Amino acid sequence: MTTSRETIRINEKRFLEDFSRLTRDGATPEGGLNRPALSEAHLAARATFRNMIQERGFSVREDTAGNLSACHTLPETGKPVLLLGSHLDSVANGGRFDGALGVAAAFEVLQVMRDNGADSEMPVEVIDFTDEEGTWVSLLGSRAMSGQLTQKDLTNPRGDPEAFQQALERAGLSISGLLDAARPADSLQAYLELHIEQGTRLERSETDIGVVTGMVGIHMFLITFLGQSNHAGTTPMNKRRDAALGAAEFCLMVQKTVMDNYPDCVATVGRMDFSPGAFNIVANRVTVFMELRSEDPTRAGALEQALRETSLNTSAKFGLKVDFQHLESVAERKMAPTIVEHFESSVDLLGLSSRRLPSLAGHDAQSMATLCPAGLIFVPSAGGFSHSFREYTPWEACVEGANVLLHTAMQLLKPSE
Amino acid sequence: MTTSRETIRINEKRFLEDFSRLTRDGATPEGGLNRPALSEAHLAARATFRNMIQERGFSVREDTAGNLSACHTLPETGKPVLLLGSHLDSVANGGRFDGALGVAAAFEVLQVMRDNGADSEMPVEVIDFTDEEGTWVSLLGSRAMSGQLTQKDLTNPRGDPEAFQQALERAGLSISGLLDAARPADSLQAYLELHIEQGTRLERSETDIGVVTGMVGIHMFLITFLGQSNHAGTTPMNKRRDAALGAAEFCLMVQKTVMDNYPDCVATVGRMDFSPGAFNIVANRVTVFMELRSEDPTRAGALEQALRETSLNTSAKFGLKVDFQHLESVAERKMAPTIVEHFESSVDLLGLSSRRLPSLAGHDAQSMATLCPAGLIFVPSAGGFSHSFREYTPWEACVEGANVLLHTAMQLLKPSE
Repeated sequence: MTTSRETIRINEKRFLEDFSRLTRDGATPEGGLNRPALSEAHLAARATFRNMIQERGFSVREDTAGNLSACHTLPETGKPVLLLGSHLDSVANGGRFDGALGVAAAFEVLQVMRDNGADSEMPVEVIDFTDEEGTWVSLLGSRAMSGQLTQKDLTNPRGDPEAFQQALERAGLSISGLLDAARPADSLQAYLELHIEQGTRLERSETDIGVVTGMVGIHMFLITFLGQSNHAGTTPMNKRRDAALGAAEFCLMVQKTVMDNYPDCVATVGRMDFSPGAFNIVANRVTVFMELRSEDPTRAGALEQALRETSLNTSAKFGLKVDFQHLESVAERKMAPTIVEHFESSVDLLGLSSRRLPSLAGHDAQSMATLCPAGLIFVPSAGGFSHSFREYTPWEACVEGANVLLHTAMQLLKPSE
Repeated sequence: MTTSRETIRINEKRFLEDFSRLTRDGATPEGGLNRPALSEAHLAARATFRNMIQERGFSVREDTAGNLSACHTLPETGKPVLLLGSHLDSVANGGRFDGALGVAAAFEVLQVMRDNGADSEMPVEVIDFTDEEGTWVSLLGSRAMSGQLTQKDLTNPRGDPEAFQQALERAGLSISGLLDAARPADSLQAYLELHIEQGTRLERSETDIGVVTGMVGIHMFLITFLGQSNHAGTTPMNKRRDAALGAAEFCLMVQKTVMDNYPDCVATVGRMDFSPGAFNIVANRVTVFMELRSEDPTRAGALEQALRETSLNTSAKFGLKVDFQHLESVAERKMAPTIVEHFESSVDLLGLSSRRLPSLAGHDAQSMATLCPAGLIFVPSAGGFSHSFREYTPWEACVEGANVLLHTAMQLLKPSE
């Protein structure tokens, strides 16, 4: 690299064209993206990315977890790789920016570094991770690469195990391949990712870049209220033990408890299952699907305890029993402090503003953090919309984020002086 | 009949043996019955009843709706028939007394009338109606017999239409047969039924017999709260439009509104469907399945209007929209006043107590009321349990009810003097 490297910027036009091309497969009429991992639309998007890699003269690398990369030099050179990337899959009926923007930005960074005379052995790799969104298994590709995947994760996918098997076959993948995709820690220098915030902290504070300090822990619970099934016509209202009432009051109390006493946490009731679930039978069993998130495990534990007490009070009030079951947690994860500082110095160099913040969503960077120093930046999300066709980030903000990614990558690749 | 007819009573031992035999097929370990209409267990129960009819020397009659009868004389005699009966099917995991008790009591009445010298042309028929519980189509057999069934009812069964078709074939029935099973009005003199109350009005007032004045109207609604799906981690609690909150508050308000202002009605939320229905997505759509019941259509309308206003207030509070859809109603239906009086004079003759009350559940008697004078009596339900293995009526109370049925049948058959 030359001494004028501080003035290097990404190519806005090429970046926009590449982003447009990477968000064409699975586009919905409303302007969103519908490409759940390993669906036909998702596989089409991967084929598009593969073509782009080859057209631009980079090497294609695909591992046995389906992670798809563009490499300036093949990994055989042996140098630890600087990995940049994100994911091309979406939730069902998601938006265009979640994932695809990060892949497009990383690919643009790779191109602009080559344009500016990086030597032929520049160990940079741009990756699209498999199933970040967890259509089948959350953070599937990055967990496979970082060796965190277990047989159990793969035999209990979300959705039908048989459908998962068929989806893997459609993509030319296999369970054994997924379990065999771990890379050694010393093969990676660092991992950097750009993503949309999916919230409004940056927008409200008019900040250009969010430098992520870590991911919140995510804690999932199944809370089952147990009453007595009975005839909906003949059972007097005051003689019922109606599980619906316990579940309904608990749902309202979850929101109230968080808003009143845990403003640093979020909690959501995303589903309730009624049994037997008929117009004319008082429900004897309602299962509430709840998750809570906090960057502080102590606070998460306190909120869980408060909600356990709430569930007991609510069930007593309606003559019910309750079973409060912890289902699964994803631990909070810190980003590497050195990378946080590199991001901030790039922000300064570019004359932008930034703030440190936790990520309230999971990202591939948290898998990679177990393997190498990892870092993540956010660009603002207009209105905070996420997992929706309303997802939107102004293009200037995307360009600013890509430039921060570029300069941070260049700092990390600079021979230590 | 002889002049000593006032002293005639049913044979308690035979009645108990017959009831036991009629509740053996599909018995559950907890002591309930699991024989949804046209299931193997239900067809086994019908075969048992058919054997009992033949063993006791009565004629079997089965119509094209699968209604199965015991006749003292074949209908070819041309006299209008006094029809007595109930149903042998149950809800999934229901109780032993709901339906089977009424068939056993009617069958015992037929036997004791023959024992006491009814002439060979006594036009009495004891019937088991098909699918009273509406596993497929509510009151299927009695609606078929009274000519109230439409093609539309049969092409939109509860559950899968293909499974319904298979169930009909298994039972040797057909759609065209169901539509062709109507009997002419002049073929029936009256219809009488004994059933358990499925509530606690008799038990609490220590009354032996409930004489039903009519069935409540049943009104079913689908109330859909519409918000915005969003990321359950990154969307701040105060920025959400969470359909779960509207549905939960509405569910609590249904109970409160009825208990505070409509003690003469009941209303039930038996199910809610969440969309997309995941731990990590704020629900954008929750559909509430609600029904309300009242014997007074004016009161039902007022309650519906109150709940419509509640749904609007609740949805406004949480930034939602609401769609309040009336799905279906079953109109209230009066029992014949002459039959009510006959029941009451039998109660007096037997030295029992009775009260008039509306039925809060649907019964085959309401179908038959469109064809001929129809009447229904209740015996008490211990604790009011219904559609549950906890269903129980003390045997003495069953015997008392059967004696009321017997004397009312004898009054109706007595040559007018």
